[in-house]
Amino acid sequence: MSEKPAQDKLWGGRFSEPTDQFVEAFTASVGFDQRLYRHDIEGSCAHARMLARVGVLSDGECEQIQQGLGEILAQIEAGDFQWSVSLEDVHMNVEARLIERIGDVGKKLHTGRSRNDQVATDIRLYLREAIDGILAEIRRLQQGLLDLAEREAETVMPGFTHLQTAQPVTFGHHMMAWFEMLERDHARLLDCRRRVNVMPLGSAALAGTPYPLDRHYTAELLGFEGVSDNSLDAVSDRDFAIEFCAAGALIMTHLSRFSEELILWASAQFGFVDLPDRFCTGSSIMPQKKNPDVPELVRGKTGRVNGNLIAMLTLMKAQPLAYNKDNQEDKEPLFDTVDTLAGSLRAFADMMPHVQVRAEAMEAAARSGFATATDLADYLVSKGMAFRDAHEVVGRAVRLGVETGRDLSQMDLQELQRFSSVIQDDVFKVLTLQGSVAARNLHGGTAPVQVRERIREARTRLDCGS
Amino acid sequence: MSEKPAQDKLWGGRFSEPTDQFVEAFTASVGFDQRLYRHDIEGSCAHARMLARVGVLSDGECEQIQQGLGEILAQIEAGDFQWSVSLEDVHMNVEARLIERIGDVGKKLHTGRSRNDQVATDIRLYLREAIDGILAEIRRLQQGLLDLAEREAETVMPGFTHLQTAQPVTFGHHMMAWFEMLERDHARLLDCRRRVNVMPLGSAALAGTPYPLDRHYTAELLGFEGVSDNSLDAVSDRDFAIEFCAAGALIMTHLSRFSEELILWASAQFGFVDLPDRFCTGSSIMPQKKNPDVPELVRGKTGRVNGNLIAMLTLMKAQPLAYNKDNQEDKEPLFDTVDTLAGSLRAFADMMPHVQVRAEAMEAAARSGFATATDLADYLVSKGMAFRDAHEVVGRAVRLGVETGRDLSQMDLQELQRFSSVIQDDVFKVLTLQGSVAARNLHGGTAPVQVRERIREARTRLDCGS
Amino acid sequence: MSEKPAQDKLWGGRFSEPTDQFVEAFTASVGFDQRLYRHDIEGSCAHARMLARVGVLSDGECEQIQQGLGEILAQIEAGDFQWSVSLEDVHMNVEARLIERIGDVGKKLHTGRSRNDQVATDIRLYLREAIDGILAEIRRLQQGLLDLAEREAETVMPGFTHLQTAQPVTFGHHMMAWFEMLERDHARLLDCRRRVNVMPLGSAALAGTPYPLDRHYTAELLGFEGVSDNSLDAVSDRDFAIEFCAAGALIMTHLSRFSEELILWASAQFGFVDLPDRFCTGSSIMPQKKNPDVPELVRGKTGRVNGNLIAMLTLMKAQPLAYNKDNQEDKEPLFDTVDTLAGSLRAFADMMPHVQVRAEAMEAAARSGFATATDLADYLVSKGMAFRDAHEVVGRAVRLGVETGRDLSQMDLQELQRFSSVIQDDVFKVLTLQGSVAARNLHGGTAPVQVRERIREARTRLDCGS
Amino acid sequence: MSEKPAQDKLWGGRFSEPTDQFVEAFTASVGFDQRLYRHDIEGSCAHARMLARVGVLSDGECEQIQQGLGEILAQIEAGDFQWSVSLEDVHMNVEARLIERIGDVGKKLHTGRSRNDQVATDIRLYLREAIDGILAEIRRLQQGLLDLAEREAETVMPGFTHLQTAQPVTFGHHMMAWFEMLERDHARLLDCRRRVNVMPLGSAALAGTPYPLDRHYTAELLGFEGVSDNSLDAVSDRDFAIEFCAAGALIMTHLSRFSEELILWASAQFGFVDLPDRFCTGSSIMPQKKNPDVPELVRGKTGRVNGNLIAMLTLMKAQPLAYNKDNQEDKEPLFDTVDTLAGSLRAFADMMPHVQVRAEAMEAAARSGFATATDLADYLVSKGMAFRDAHEVVGRAVRLGVETGRDLSQMDLQELQRFSSVIQDDVFKVLTLQGSVAARNLHGGTAPVQVRERIREARTRLDCGS
Repeated sequence: MSEKPAQDKLWGGRFSEPTDQFVEAFTASVGFDQRLYRHDIEGSCAHARMLARVGVLSDGECEQIQQGLGEILAQIEAGDFQWSVSLEDVHMNVEARLIERIGDVGKKLHTGRSRNDQVATDIRLYLREAIDGILAEIRRLQQGLLDLAEREAETVMPGFTHLQTAQPVTFGHHMMAWFEMLERDHARLLDCRRRVNVMPLGSAALAGTPYPLDRHYTAELLGFEGVSDNSLDAVSDRDFAIEFCAAGALIMTHLSRFSEELILWASAQFGFVDLPDRFCTGSSIMPQKKNPDVPELVRGKTGRVNGNLIAMLTLMKAQPLAYNKDNQEDKEPLFDTVDTLAGSLRAFADMMPHVQVRAEAMEAAARSGFATATDLADYLVSKGMAFRDAHEVVGRAVRLGVETGRDLSQMDLQELQRFSSVIQDDVFKVLTLQGSVAARNLHGGTAPVQVRERIREARTRLDCGS
Repeated sequence: MSEKPAQDKLWGGRFSEPTDQFVEAFTASVGFDQRLYRHDIEGSCAHARMLARVGVLSDGECEQIQQGLGEILAQIEAGDFQWSVSLEDVHMNVEARLIERIGDVGKKLHTGRSRNDQVATDIRLYLREAIDGILAEIRRLQQGLLDLAEREAETVMPGFTHLQTAQPVTFGHHMMAWFEMLERDHARLLDCRRRVNVMPLGSAALAGTPYPLDRHYTAELLGFEGVSDNSLDAVSDRDFAIEFCAAGALIMTHLSRFSEELILWASAQFGFVDLPDRFCTGSSIMPQKKNPDVPELVRGKTGRVNGNLIAMLTLMKAQPLAYNKDNQEDKEPLFDTVDTLAGSLRAFADMMPHVQVRAEAMEAAARSGFATATDLADYLVSKGMAFRDAHEVVGRAVRLGVETGRDLSQMDLQELQRFSSVIQDDVFKVLTLQGSVAARNLHGGTAPVQVRERIREARTRLDCGS
Repeated sequence: MSEKPAQDKLWGGRFSEPTDQFVEAFTASVGFDQRLYRHDIEGSCAHARMLARVGVLSDGECEQIQQGLGEILAQIEAGDFQWSVSLEDVHMNVEARLIERIGDVGKKLHTGRSRNDQVATDIRLYLREAIDGILAEIRRLQQGLLDLAEREAETVMPGFTHLQTAQPVTFGHHMMAWFEMLERDHARLLDCRRRVNVMPLGSAALAGTPYPLDRHYTAELLGFEGVSDNSLDAVSDRDFAIEFCAAGALIMTHLSRFSEELILWASAQFGFVDLPDRFCTGSSIMPQKKNPDVPELVRGKTGRVNGNLIAMLTLMKAQPLAYNKDNQEDKEPLFDTVDTLAGSLRAFADMMPHVQVRAEAMEAAARSGFATATDLADYLVSKGMAFRDAHEVVGRAVRLGVETGRDLSQMDLQELQRFSSVIQDDVFKVLTLQGSVAARNLHGGTAPVQVRERIREARTRLDCGS
Repeated sequence: MSEKPAQDKLWGGRFSEPTDQFVEAFTASVGFDQRLYRHDIEGSCAHARMLARVGVLSDGECEQIQQGLGEILAQIEAGDFQWSVSLEDVHMNVEARLIERIGDVGKKLHTGRSRNDQVATDIRLYLREAIDGILAEIRRLQQGLLDLAEREAETVMPGFTHLQTAQPVTFGHHMMAWFEMLERDHARLLDCRRRVNVMPLGSAALAGTPYPLDRHYTAELLGFEGVSDNSLDAVSDRDFAIEFCAAGALIMTHLSRFSEELILWASAQFGFVDLPDRFCTGSSIMPQKKNPDVPELVRGKTGRVNGNLIAMLTLMKAQPLAYNKDNQEDKEPLFDTVDTLAGSLRAFADMMPHVQVRAEAMEAAARSGFATATDLADYLVSKGMAFRDAHEVVGRAVRLGVETGRDLSQMDLQELQRFSSVIQDDVFKVLTLQGSVAARNLHGGTAPVQVRERIREARTRLDCGS
């Protein structure tokens, strides 16, 4: 057991024995929350300036504190700061060092504040910044997708449902589907950011404080859009972190879908795309291997982000108000989610512009598999047949095709007419891939002209910074 | 095995044998998706009207279809509709019945449409309505909390952190903490609703359709705020359902916290509240038992909602575009989440106005446990001591209190002065519960005047319908 | 509100008002726990027989009770039983009906028992039976895999890592990989079954009972392998259900992997297998579609089983002892897990024997993609080169192959010798697919002789019923 | 981008450009898998010895390799090893260093092996050891609980259901409930260990290897109980890790329940126990606070372990065979689960023996709340009343008690007789706490004599090392 008395702790007055050494290490958070140092110091500076403004500190005291904190910041960034597990967390480490440096004035900084509202403020500052970084990576990836979509707006590939050839689509259209998912992710994160950007500081331990704090001034200094309305809620709320993790789980769900497709497309069987060597790795035993590591790893990382979300929800389940020590467990899943999102998005944003599209392989694949069967049904409808009857007619033609190993476009007119006499020579136009995609010329459809229009609108939206 | 040929299916043309009977039952969704019948018919009516507007249907055909659908709707609501597992889902059941009733015209309804965009539209219509119901229950519960908070704005109770007595707060303030959580839930659901309220119809199977559909007109008829921008995305996207489930998990997390507190408060040990007999049940063996079933059950139901969220995320992980059969699994977790939220919120909204508050028990509890120790520290700061030193002084006084079994307010001046000579007779004012809560008179603090102000603002907000 | 007094409840004595009608419906479990009726009655019969044996009931009373319960069972199975929500659950419904039928004697059945130990017993009886059904389905699926593996023990396919061609394997070997996963599932369920098969009855509400019950006799009657050792634990424990759900999540994880492969293999791009028409369905819009619904749906159902596991874990988190109402939420996720496992396994067991293997397509795929590159490296090692150097040499040869579009076996000796002079004419033998698989002739390897040996061992194991 | 060519990688032969630097860092696992160094080297030594035994290596080569590996091990443990991100993982780092140290002989070590089977072997060796450590901590905690239970075998406390006073139990009985949960955890981990302890080595990349490896010899050297039966399965299987995480989630579920109870019991309202100061911490603002940090933190850590389980299940969902890069994501959740279990169990094992029991507070609590109402009902049954009627009679008596603020034992005989004339003077004996607990004298019941018997049996079991 540690020999140093608990009284050495900043909270040790009422304790009769020092903390057990294993417990000290087990309960300390400084190993991971030191990552918040910049936001902790930023919050303390603003708190000090506010305390001076309302007269709790003199201007000179405020000046000393800010100077001291500035030096500590520099020391940390230079790697010269000794973090102490016995001081538990980033807050106590910084405060103890401040007192060490500037003496008794440092002891006044914590006036009208508790670690409960302090840490809630720190995490929000951290997360706000992290969200901004992630939003930027989403935009970068979207830009890459727009360029790719534009380049391949006419490239025909088989569209799949149930991984069976369904109808021809364009590669550009497919890339724009990915773009749309990211567009929703961007919007969701912005909504989340508004709820993150609310300041708990001033809630103190749980009940507020008798000091005449000017919370709105502190909020202004820190760029918060508002202040929390209830102190009990403010110190125990972690909704904003859970909402972020849920938004993050959707981002990873999307990236996992992109990944699955890239892995399929890069397989010898599909051969639709080629990933640059520098985004792949090899095998220690099989000399021929070139593995699509990035999408595989990103697909796998979906698991940890879903796991982090569950960790956070489980953590908060049935916790009585207000702050409980359980809440310390909010940080690692949050940090890990931020890092995973940032890394995965970056990897995709770097890689996508360099993916090589094998247009001929895609077109060849689209040409088999009866991709234009629906076009034939639609053709029959245009000749007056009800859709359900047309569907039945084409189904029988496909059955013959399967049995004889031919696509519809490889049957001659006579053969086709065996299924319906309304079929005429003009049918072959609708059985081409280009005809099929061009015909789907409505908002959201795969016709190249529509895809280009969506790209144009998207560029305008992104340029407006919205 | 079923004797009926697969050709009897609306899609059977290309199949050489009927569906296996177990597979038919295993893959059918009609057992649960029949719940969408109203939205399915509503969507079909709008689709028909649009088809008539663009000339794909004649006005007479449109009329016939609408009439037929109306009769089917009436039949379902009267409980006279025979659902058929062999027709797989709600869509095929309704369409087959329509064709049965009105003949060949019915076969034209599915023109320019696929079950893929149809079901996506149905779920969105369903979920939009469900969200509106949930928003209303949240508001009803909030109103009950506001009334309760106002009634108990001066009632003092111990505020807890770590379930240890921390500082006195008011019961009204505590209720307003719950109110705030629900306020965020309301805002989150509104954000989610915007992303739900986008129409996929017109995306057809995955690529759009060659028919000249007027998607904006259909959207207008159905009250959608916009149309989807990419057909591949639109038929496979379930983000909106996952986002809803995540918002729902947070609502249940909040209700689980309320529940935990009610269960604690209703225990013999706390005795802070009494739940009406009609919200409780008894034991089959112990005649004295009166159990807080509602909060316990709601706390337990948190599990299923977290589970539903994970079910949905797992479902979508790594699915290639576009629609896959996996997606059929989206409905049960979604429905269950809606039902659980609606029921749990209703139970709380019904119960909370009738909770009886035991003010004397709360006040007695607040009077022990050194709840005003922080006030003493703040008092010392007001006499010029630095906060950290004041904390230390009070800590030592508390230690004496623990050893001698007395609260700070039960020590006399001389005893207190042993810890610091700056303590004077005016100290006893700050050691009262009422003094303590009144002193926390800043935005978000527990002072009754602040709580009443927050209630007033909240009432204004709710009255504005925002 | 209900007009009927709570005193009508079997526990109503101490209540002053009837239960709120919505609360009654919200908290009732009879809607789903009626499924336990058979096990509930079985448990009650055994309890009555034991009560008679220890003298709490006379033989005549016991007889009357057993007769009454038998009639109720028959009534339920005939569909003639009116379940009452106001009687809350299956237990109260059966007991109330018993009293109705046989009068005051029925009131003696619940002696020395509580619903807490009764429901725990019912679930265990139910789950034990469910596990036995699932074990049988696993065995049936395994038998199908063994037959398939034996039939295709020599069929060569490309083995993949990272979905890139890695080395040739046999289809039989691949099927045996699936077999192995199921083998572990079987073992895990057996381990779980032992912990399920312990009787809580006799724990009463939470503390045991003063009646001189003979717990071991009841356990013997019900086929339990032991009795619980602690009453507090016994009524609140749901470990066995969570352990089952976790084992179930692994089973579904395996089936999701089988599904993914079947879906890939059934795609036009792979073309490795053909699923029988009767296990597939079509599209309402695309006449050519034949979708692998069964594996897709099973893959999707993985989500709900993972979700159920999380629901159960969340439910139990931080629950104080002993029984809480939360526990009522254990049943639906458990039932759903049982149903999903039983259905998914059945669908696979029915389908797998009828999967058609396209051997030529597999072999063609294996022939490209440098599947035998590792064999070339091993060849070089056999000529005295260190493995790492051999890997490097072959890597360079593959690079030439990629650039010139040829497999290693398509290069001539001279070309190969450019990479290493130790290569001789005997190299071409090791570059054949058959040579490659036959060479991997060690325990667990893909050589047909090894695969056949594993099949033989497996058949012996299954025949022994272990 | 990195300037160093990919050819520097041990697998670089077929690559035309070096790996992207961010990708290199993003995909590298050495940052976390270096933790496996000891098991990696242990596995390599055994592999080398086996290669020598079958003649692939000479004895001298084997000697050199073992010596080299031994030196590397020493270097790592001394902290002198430079881990290189560009060498990706622990395996390549060790192998590259080996070649550096002992030259070309080192290149022969990887013969007949792939990183795929190597890493699977390493994790199993690691996890086997981790399980043994956790089993030992469980036993240590159980021993502490047995001692505590024995000490408090007669101490009466209120037993709760629904957190309402139910029946008197003893504190010793309650501790034994915790013991039982851990007993199942122990058994589950042993079952899991058997499935962990199977050797994949010899599966090579996915298909086995042509070298004449003696897998059973390697297994014997490494203490494995068996070898894997299918190479495709062996390299991609992570069941054992998921099963461990699931067993871990149950352990944490139990610890979260213990934690919840300790937190409740340590509250001022319950006051049942006192935690030693050295296991608690204070508040930065509230000088009186002594917070039960250890149980709170452990309760919170339940979240991360549930999250890890979901991460692993999500990771494996729908992965096609055999090894995919996704699998690299298995390690961090596994390591974190091991660390969390080890730390949480240790903290509890350290703390529990020092928990101070407040027997008088428990007994006082048990004396109120009608804890013996069931005893009164049982008394009436003993006088010939049917249990259901007795329940009703006592319910009415309790209702009077609630209205007049008295426990049953505080009513006089005349009052009690108003509810039933069969009540006589001997009733007061059954209304005592001691009488109540002593009466529950059956296997698993709370009677002190039964609890002591269970303790005795448990000690025997633990002493036998089973």
